[in-house]
Amino acid sequence: MESDVVIIGGSAAGLMAAVTLKKRTPEKSVTVIRNVNKTPVPCGIPYIYGIMGQVEKNLIPDQGFIDQGIVIRQQNVTGIDRDNKTVLLDNGEQITYSKLIIGTGSKPFVPPLPGIDKTNVFTITKDPVHLQQIYTALEPSKNVVVIGGGFIGVEMAEQIILMGKKGTQEKSVTIVEMLPRCLMLACEEDFCVEIEKELEKVGVIIKTSSQALEITGQENVAGVKLANGETIQADAVIIGIGAQANIDLAQACGLDSDPRAGIKVNKYMQTSDPDIFAAGDCSTKFSCITGMPSGIRLASVACSEGMIAASNLYENKRETLGALGAFSTVVGGRAVAAAGLTSKAATDAGINFIIGEVTAPNRHPGHLPGSIPDMKIRLLFRQENGEIIGGHVSGGESAADMVNIVATAIQARLTAEQLAVMQYATHPLLTSSPLSYHVMLAAENAAAKLG
Amino acid sequence: MESDVVIIGGSAAGLMAAVTLKKRTPEKSVTVIRNVNKTPVPCGIPYIYGIMGQVEKNLIPDQGFIDQGIVIRQQNVTGIDRDNKTVLLDNGEQITYSKLIIGTGSKPFVPPLPGIDKTNVFTITKDPVHLQQIYTALEPSKNVVVIGGGFIGVEMAEQIILMGKKGTQEKSVTIVEMLPRCLMLACEEDFCVEIEKELEKVGVIIKTSSQALEITGQENVAGVKLANGETIQADAVIIGIGAQANIDLAQACGLDSDPRAGIKVNKYMQTSDPDIFAAGDCSTKFSCITGMPSGIRLASVACSEGMIAASNLYENKRETLGALGAFSTVVGGRAVAAAGLTSKAATDAGINFIIGEVTAPNRHPGHLPGSIPDMKIRLLFRQENGEIIGGHVSGGESAADMVNIVATAIQARLTAEQLAVMQYATHPLLTSSPLSYHVMLAAENAAAKLG
Repeated sequence: MESDVVIIGGSAAGLMAAVTLKKRTPEKSVTVIRNVNKTPVPCGIPYIYGIMGQVEKNLIPDQGFIDQGIVIRQQNVTGIDRDNKTVLLDNGEQITYSKLIIGTGSKPFVPPLPGIDKTNVFTITKDPVHLQQIYTALEPSKNVVVIGGGFIGVEMAEQIILMGKKGTQEKSVTIVEMLPRCLMLACEEDFCVEIEKELEKVGVIIKTSSQALEITGQENVAGVKLANGETIQADAVIIGIGAQANIDLAQACGLDSDPRAGIKVNKYMQTSDPDIFAAGDCSTKFSCITGMPSGIRLASVACSEGMIAASNLYENKRETLGALGAFSTVVGGRAVAAAGLTSKAATDAGINFIIGEVTAPNRHPGHLPGSIPDMKIRLLFRQENGEIIGGHVSGGESAADMVNIVATAIQARLTAEQLAVMQYATHPLLTSSPLSYHVMLAAENAAAKLG
Repeated sequence: MESDVVIIGGSAAGLMAAVTLKKRTPEKSVTVIRNVNKTPVPCGIPYIYGIMGQVEKNLIPDQGFIDQGIVIRQQNVTGIDRDNKTVLLDNGEQITYSKLIIGTGSKPFVPPLPGIDKTNVFTITKDPVHLQQIYTALEPSKNVVVIGGGFIGVEMAEQIILMGKKGTQEKSVTIVEMLPRCLMLACEEDFCVEIEKELEKVGVIIKTSSQALEITGQENVAGVKLANGETIQADAVIIGIGAQANIDLAQACGLDSDPRAGIKVNKYMQTSDPDIFAAGDCSTKFSCITGMPSGIRLASVACSEGMIAASNLYENKRETLGALGAFSTVVGGRAVAAAGLTSKAATDAGINFIIGEVTAPNRHPGHLPGSIPDMKIRLLFRQENGEIIGGHVSGGESAADMVNIVATAIQARLTAEQLAVMQYATHPLLTSSPLSYHVMLAAENAAAKLG
């Protein structure tokens, strides 16, 4: 079999690449090979266990892609024969390509804990079969420990509580996090505190500055032993402590790659083989703010890279701006969103910055329906030139889109002065007042300090 | 009395100027003179009549300004003596200034209709006393006609229906609009249709392509006669057909000004007298997109101009980017927001443009709670260089912040290509999928056409 373009991996980077190709070069045949039967919505995975209640409800339908002429295959790729430009499948089949995109994603970190192999200890992968196994294990569980208080851990913890409330078995859920706060690598500390408060309101037990030392039990997990000597009872353990690039295929066929950083790519998302591109969690990245190597692995980055890779297969047309950490989450009644550097990350990068911040209702007057009186924004700007390098927003649903004003501004390298004098749409029932629209006023507060 | 800075007008431009001065030059004394006892939230006015139910609930509290050391006076200004740098008040008092900011706003257009002076025919002003008179007249009314289907007309119509439902007297409300659609000067036609559908759902009768010819009745209004011969019964009539700059004081003291365009200002918001600045609805504007004179009068523009004027009093530090039409509204269950040029406005300005659009749920997967399956975005880009010149969003609450990504992009002159390759935060419970985040995908769809 042959296909003009073969894409290995059917998640964010792979699917976005396929769609982009069909939009820009519809005459090219495109085959996506994935090792799972269906592609889950990656960021939706935690919500399988609570709100959705079924793995099937969190799958990306293939039909839309098939309708565009994209071929989707379920098969394990066993190797890439670069000399013959052929991908080898585990059923013995070979697919020749003109151009290849590798989007093999990441593998969850597995901490080297004694007892890690016990039954009912799970990392999170994007395989629906595996996600169903987790579901089956969680459903009857009474005590669940989540190791890692990052986004997956926080969202899983809330949803497992909800699973208990919807089902027959109420659950006690404990997050064990090494850092002093949940989400601390991603968020400013006071925004972490907001999320922790919401977690506690729904009943999650949070143990920060805590290290898991051992998974206890016989064949089945029975508990998690912490460094302070305490053992937390557990019928199931979820591990969400990050992921590393899946470079196995790339390494095996001799592409430049690094176990920590990923498959080496240039700004065109091209690997050391000019006919092979890589995108998403599996490829190397640099920060769009500092230019330094970056470990940010997000579906939003993967989509952007997949689009760029697909656009460059036959001619280098687009460069990546570099990876931007931009995300949002919602726990209980509070949404928290961030883009770019935190104060700590900026300090660590040696950047002098000034802060502009605002707390104001998301309605005007503030008593109108849907009001969140303390919607909050914090923006960070380089001292030297006023360029925005980061921002956090917390409040209601609209925080997720407001932070994308920040994301846009960071990637366009706008300054506090530019953001302060810009005009923004406001409405009594939808936003804060035009006198205090969060982005404008925070930028102006910073601009006033910058002088 | 003397004050370093005197500001005439206590609405958006004036208050923003006062706050900016206290932030940037706290040592300067600032006096705001307004001709009303309290400042209403300008965009909140329609909601007085429905959701809020009281004029008092839509007032901007003075205390926050007073706490910053801003003096707020209620007085009519009778003249400006530029030679003596003195403002004359109707109580005989004089206030000398070092710098003066005029923020006298606009006056509603009053159409030259026979019968316009009858009792219970109202334009909308920002005077709480007048707004209360409207309230008192509307409360017992059974039939209300709203002349003008722009933002004020549309929002008033919905809220008057709600007033009827909350009160003892149910109301029939009819909008009479000359153009083929409500909101047609501001919005693309299909977005106008969305709002019209919502209006009809709540019971508003819409008569577009209709012209009011006469207000009928004895002393009190009894009806509105249309050009087609029909007469609509009316116990009260609300007129919302636009506003013109209030240049009376400026003209009287010899500042360059134009009855249609406003008080002439340069990019620093400085009038023909270097010690006098003007901002908001009363001052001349140019479009930030075309550079041509603009009639856009919005609180968001006023705030930006007030901030810029205040920053330039003692040294020209900031230039306006020009006025941007950026607004949002919500009727029934649908929010519609727009920034920049509509297709018609772009065509009228002689701009060749291409369109990128997307309809996608605001959740992923799309069945999650709060989903609006048909959240829609349309972006317009210049054919010649790909720069964004306009955008519309409709959907839920987040449309209002998403359109501010568009507003930011327009003012920063970003291109379809730039917006397409940028990364945006997404979350299952807050936004569309990263594969189809509205701004990104619409930009990419346009970029693919631009080639």
